[in-house]
Amino acid sequence: MSGIKFNRIALIGIGLIGSSLARIIREKDLAGHISIATRSKKTLYKARELVLGDSYTIDSAEAVKDADLVIISVPVGASGIVARNIANSLKFGAIVTDVGSAKASVISQMQPELPDHVHFIPGHPIAGTEFSGPCAGFAELFSNRWCILTPIPGTNEEALEKLNAFWVACGSKTDWMDPVHHDLILAMVSHLPHIIAYSIIGTANNLEKAIHAEVIAYSASGFRDFTRLSSSDPAMWRDICLHNRDAILEVLGRFSEDLALLQRAIRCEDSDALFELFTYTRAIRQDVIEEEKKKNRPSCGNK
Amino acid sequence: MSGIKFNRIALIGIGLIGSSLARIIREKDLAGHISIATRSKKTLYKARELVLGDSYTIDSAEAVKDADLVIISVPVGASGIVARNIANSLKFGAIVTDVGSAKASVISQMQPELPDHVHFIPGHPIAGTEFSGPCAGFAELFSNRWCILTPIPGTNEEALEKLNAFWVACGSKTDWMDPVHHDLILAMVSHLPHIIAYSIIGTANNLEKAIHAEVIAYSASGFRDFTRLSSSDPAMWRDICLHNRDAILEVLGRFSEDLALLQRAIRCEDSDALFELFTYTRAIRQDVIEEEKKKNRPSCGNK
Repeated sequence: MSGIKFNRIALIGIGLIGSSLARIIREKDLAGHISIATRSKKTLYKARELVLGDSYTIDSAEAVKDADLVIISVPVGASGIVARNIANSLKFGAIVTDVGSAKASVISQMQPELPDHVHFIPGHPIAGTEFSGPCAGFAELFSNRWCILTPIPGTNEEALEKLNAFWVACGSKTDWMDPVHHDLILAMVSHLPHIIAYSIIGTANNLEKAIHAEVIAYSASGFRDFTRLSSSDPAMWRDICLHNRDAILEVLGRFSEDLALLQRAIRCEDSDALFELFTYTRAIRQDVIEEEKKKNRPSCGNK
Repeated sequence: MSGIKFNRIALIGIGLIGSSLARIIREKDLAGHISIATRSKKTLYKARELVLGDSYTIDSAEAVKDADLVIISVPVGASGIVARNIANSLKFGAIVTDVGSAKASVISQMQPELPDHVHFIPGHPIAGTEFSGPCAGFAELFSNRWCILTPIPGTNEEALEKLNAFWVACGSKTDWMDPVHHDLILAMVSHLPHIIAYSIIGTANNLEKAIHAEVIAYSASGFRDFTRLSSSDPAMWRDICLHNRDAILEVLGRFSEDLALLQRAIRCEDSDALFELFTYTRAIRQDVIEEEKKKNRPSCGNK
């Protein structure tokens, strides 16, 4: 029993993340009232049909009235506009957070728009699937997954602890991090793999038509994993590329260098170099497996 | 009930593939006798301990005596040496096949060594896991997975049908293909994804030590899939790179071009180009999922 409960939580955006939040908030009784806003009428009807909240509107300013927690779950490129729309309707002392994958950009977009009387605490639950929309959400999405908070200097401690407790109640393990550092880590562990996956699928797609069908037929041998990553929400990924541009170009540059070296080792038939590379990567897999074992142990909240 | 049964099957190499074959051959009663050969005494002891066969030797020539089916499951770079070792001991009319992922190279290594009185039919079961060695094998490895035969001109029809029936009895769907065409398809669906995965793990590993730990901690967001691919057997992958060099360099070249274009789109903040790429890759995922649904329908053997 977490004990954390908000009078009113406003969810702006009700896609995979927003609708998963709605479900877990209901399940864990984390809010007296859930108000939902989304730009698209069609999506709003779907959310209502699924009974994800208590009130529904296409007007985000309307949704945030009296809310003591506002969670913005929209593609990162839309964060600034949303902040501008809700700024004048926010309750005094409300916590405003988001779930975007590029924190420095979200901060620079939102902070100038928001009034001083709210607690703006950027966040990022590292959780997702290749599916999107309100039907794709599920209450267990955050269970045992990391949620990283990237508080800006001068953040109110009490508000931070409260938001932290909220994510723990949703099942997450939490961590706090500098926004720029977060963006570099995420560029490496998430953005680069997705970009590579999108690119490799593109390469396959550009092959001659006859080969294309066989690529699909024999996809089980490695290619398949990439198709999953590359079927995530396109608007979300476009925005991540645009809003975490510098960190992504940094890791992409490093990756291109490494790939060029590997390509040369293949061209020069450098047997020893290939064997060495293909051996030491095994150790990282071992570390990842060890990390996963830890997941089954109880979370102790933030560090 | 398949009806196919060999008097004696010799398995040269008893790693993931060889030991999975031993298990399914036993389970389906496809051989009167299974003889096992491997270079390493330690691996041979392990195979004996697991009771994978009926006889065990470190001498491949000894193992193939009287065998009417010989299956070579070694890293592709060792195919030629194995062929030379067994050439003078092969039974008249024996079928000799392999399981390597690079067919043109295996053919050029093995064909000159083998006597005219055997039927050499190269093959490639597209099945595997990231684990290796005799303990890693399991009887279901080939179930509903493709096995591609790449017969050379003039191959005896009866022998080909017999080998085909063997793989179908092991649970595989079979297909016949030109060796060079096979190598290009596999370069795209399997070799390129693995090489990219090895490379991206290398990039992560070269990051500053502080970042490294966090990359492991937050690996769930895409990176994890790559660590699985990149923990496969290093000797096997070194040999694939060396022996399917041309096809791999061809697809790697195409991939590098595509990645450079994507990198430029990110650098130039070309929102439309990014959205378009991230959208059309979804269609390929759909094709892959459709293909997987077909798997649950019964196989009708070769085409």
